[in-house]
Amino acid sequence: MNPGLTLLEIARRLGGEVAGDSQLVVRGMATLEEAGPGDLAFLANKRYRRQLADTRASAVILSPDDRALTTLPCVVVTNPYAGYARVVAMFHPPRKARAGVHPSAVIDPSATVAASAEVGPLAHIAAGAAVGEGAIIGAGSVVGEGARIGDETQLVSRVTVYEACVIGARCIVHAGAVIGADGFGMAPEGGRWVKIPQVGRVVVGDDVEIGANTAIDRGALGDTVIGEGVKIDNLVQVAHNARIGAHTVIAGCTAVAGSAVIGRHCMIGGASRILGHITLADGVTVTGCSFVTRSIREAGVYSSGVPAQPHRRWMRTLASLRRLDGAAGTTDLPGEDDGTAGH
Amino acid sequence: MNPGLTLLEIARRLGGEVAGDSQLVVRGMATLEEAGPGDLAFLANKRYRRQLADTRASAVILSPDDRALTTLPCVVVTNPYAGYARVVAMFHPPRKARAGVHPSAVIDPSATVAASAEVGPLAHIAAGAAVGEGAIIGAGSVVGEGARIGDETQLVSRVTVYEACVIGARCIVHAGAVIGADGFGMAPEGGRWVKIPQVGRVVVGDDVEIGANTAIDRGALGDTVIGEGVKIDNLVQVAHNARIGAHTVIAGCTAVAGSAVIGRHCMIGGASRILGHITLADGVTVTGCSFVTRSIREAGVYSSGVPAQPHRRWMRTLASLRRLDGAAGTTDLPGEDDGTAGH
Amino acid sequence: MNPGLTLLEIARRLGGEVAGDSQLVVRGMATLEEAGPGDLAFLANKRYRRQLADTRASAVILSPDDRALTTLPCVVVTNPYAGYARVVAMFHPPRKARAGVHPSAVIDPSATVAASAEVGPLAHIAAGAAVGEGAIIGAGSVVGEGARIGDETQLVSRVTVYEACVIGARCIVHAGAVIGADGFGMAPEGGRWVKIPQVGRVVVGDDVEIGANTAIDRGALGDTVIGEGVKIDNLVQVAHNARIGAHTVIAGCTAVAGSAVIGRHCMIGGASRILGHITLADGVTVTGCSFVTRSIREAGVYSSGVPAQPHRRWMRTLASLRRLDGAAGTTDLPGEDDGTAGH
Repeated sequence: MNPGLTLLEIARRLGGEVAGDSQLVVRGMATLEEAGPGDLAFLANKRYRRQLADTRASAVILSPDDRALTTLPCVVVTNPYAGYARVVAMFHPPRKARAGVHPSAVIDPSATVAASAEVGPLAHIAAGAAVGEGAIIGAGSVVGEGARIGDETQLVSRVTVYEACVIGARCIVHAGAVIGADGFGMAPEGGRWVKIPQVGRVVVGDDVEIGANTAIDRGALGDTVIGEGVKIDNLVQVAHNARIGAHTVIAGCTAVAGSAVIGRHCMIGGASRILGHITLADGVTVTGCSFVTRSIREAGVYSSGVPAQPHRRWMRTLASLRRLDGAAGTTDLPGEDDGTAGH
Repeated sequence: MNPGLTLLEIARRLGGEVAGDSQLVVRGMATLEEAGPGDLAFLANKRYRRQLADTRASAVILSPDDRALTTLPCVVVTNPYAGYARVVAMFHPPRKARAGVHPSAVIDPSATVAASAEVGPLAHIAAGAAVGEGAIIGAGSVVGEGARIGDETQLVSRVTVYEACVIGARCIVHAGAVIGADGFGMAPEGGRWVKIPQVGRVVVGDDVEIGANTAIDRGALGDTVIGEGVKIDNLVQVAHNARIGAHTVIAGCTAVAGSAVIGRHCMIGGASRILGHITLADGVTVTGCSFVTRSIREAGVYSSGVPAQPHRRWMRTLASLRRLDGAAGTTDLPGEDDGTAGH
Repeated sequence: MNPGLTLLEIARRLGGEVAGDSQLVVRGMATLEEAGPGDLAFLANKRYRRQLADTRASAVILSPDDRALTTLPCVVVTNPYAGYARVVAMFHPPRKARAGVHPSAVIDPSATVAASAEVGPLAHIAAGAAVGEGAIIGAGSVVGEGARIGDETQLVSRVTVYEACVIGARCIVHAGAVIGADGFGMAPEGGRWVKIPQVGRVVVGDDVEIGANTAIDRGALGDTVIGEGVKIDNLVQVAHNARIGAHTVIAGCTAVAGSAVIGRHCMIGGASRILGHITLADGVTVTGCSFVTRSIREAGVYSSGVPAQPHRRWMRTLASLRRLDGAAGTTDLPGEDDGTAGH
């Protein structure tokens, strides 16, 4: 199907070198376990070394340390995992904009769409918005009044960017994501809630990826800021005025509350929650299912996820926990009926 | 309004039998508590037996064991809860496709739409996609390039199915769901993240239901697989290369991480998290709010949800917990200010 | 840019009074910390009193108690936080409907759209639906068959309201929200699941705000009910037949299970889970990340969120917790490899 690439060409593009037949042609990338003839596999984790012996791959990307472990032709690079990422992209290059506006799209006359940009079917670009060179506004997306979409950024499909928000260059925003909805701000008054208009923006840096159905709220007065190179997974909530430092990654279903400040190069595990108005230093890792309630001033790993146990043992643990503080009875513990999978 | 059904007809369709007046006509289904004259109620759980005496229903579906508990006319079946489900469907039959393509829909000339399928307003079917017989593509949905939608499957509205993904027959996908967004894969390199193109698919079996705003990511190299008969609730995240076994149910707000393998006939409680690269055996139940961090090799019930307590008591429990490991001080505990409902 | 407002005019509209130069003109609202010349700042929390000395604001809204703390011109009101909310709205009045239907919208001939309502680009109003006076149906939204949207309610963009659901007056529903998808109801039968048709509705009261990508399911037989003045944040799941009392607020990523009843004036912290078929009294506060498994009969604060700790200390705590119930070994505890930020 595809003409394939020689190991020499791959090594050249990765800045590595070939061990073995440099003219060998590979036509795809696969894991050591699933590769077949014609595939290039990769070894990026010691755990998988034992799979080298049995792989059916025609060649392998690996590090200098692992070079002696196989007689297969190899592409040797210092970072085989990044090498794997780049080779997949050689075989599956990212989609480029097909310049032009689909006739079913609705573009306000005061909006600016670069000539090289693509606007897909049934998308809407509101008044005063601007779409950069080579950008792709996917089917059913809505770009609000005065919003700006950077060069070569892709809104995959059905993305909403609210008015005045700014998305940098080379970003990918997945389907269903909502950038710039009102922050959750209201003032109590006489038993009712008075809405606080949210008049800040969301400002997203360059090279950011935002997952499907993720929601990033606009700031109350100032802006919500997503730094360059940040990667956010699906179904993540980022509340108003949060600031996420450059190159931080946030895994799925995490909630970042209002005015939280997360440093650069942090890794936030899935289904975590970061409380509002706290600060995480650069280089903090939060493991999955943790609840961060205080500022963290030092890089390192932080956790509070509780691993699942057989239910009866967990009931005993909860009962012991209750006894710790001298409280009597177990009336607050869930009984056998509670907590099962149904609603 | 509707002509109603006799108990005889209902019993015939359910494979049960009538006790009492088999020609009695009922016109709707209701709970024992809320039923009125003309309604058929159901008793499917011992807990509600005492409601039999006071119900205003005209008739009841119940099991042979409960037959003697009432003098009302009854439809007697072995599984009254499934009977209830089926009778509701008799009164409210599922919507069928109204064959045809709405003039506002945008269908690529290379797409294939079955003559009996319905394509709603403002939907988009991309190049090479295929829509099966009797399928319904609801308003505002986007079917990506080369994607396949099975016979009699319904995308309710504003669903996105990414390129090359496959949805089986008789599925229901609710509004806002996103099937096939890129998995969250990237390789670290020099303090930045290199995107790993996600070139696998999502493959969804027959008779699957997927909830509103749920996101199921495509595989990195291989596929993400949802088995036949699986039911997934709203706002669930299924990460790349996860595999969900047939007839498993996953309640709302759950996160299933990458390459997790969940068995058949499992029940995953709401707001749970299943860590990546682990395996759950067939028949595992995980109760709500649990965090599964290790493979589970035996069917059974597993938990780690911590029940809420009055706040002051919970503060004492946390303090006791801290003392357990000999750590001094309470500086990492949330104070009275923390963790309240605001952000 | 804007002509500004005098302190006198602001005090008049808020029902407060001016201390200092009542003819002073301000042109915007800002925090004490970020305000500049021409801005009105606000002091609504004792914690920020010390910022009064350094603020560059031209004037401040504050309470009678704080009046003596500054020599700046002041607007004195009993509730400065609500005052702040109202002044922001004076400078940024909420968007009003621009009466009319965009030519790209698709409106069924049997639907009713008030003359003063706005229907945006690429929206769809299905058969028998009704849109009230001054309502705004934003771009890409879908209003299902027979659904009713109240006067002056705004569906911001890409909202879906399923058939027969009812939204009150003056509501705001943010992008991607789904109102009325099927509840997660099915009956087990022979190892498979029989779908229980969900034939109730969602009924939303007046003055409700619903966040981005939030999902509120329709009832199974009866309705799911959201009381007047309720505020729901982003990515919240409200399951079938839940009932949320008036003026309750629910922060982001919370899951409310089926048939849960939450009282009036409750505050539910983010990322919490409320189990099904339980009742919370009026005035209950649940702090973030809590799991409510039993009915709560008294107003007060309830918690079960576990604060994150340095990972090694947390591992020790978990080990201690395991020893509490006499269980041997640590095989169920996560090792160093588990729970890190990746999937």
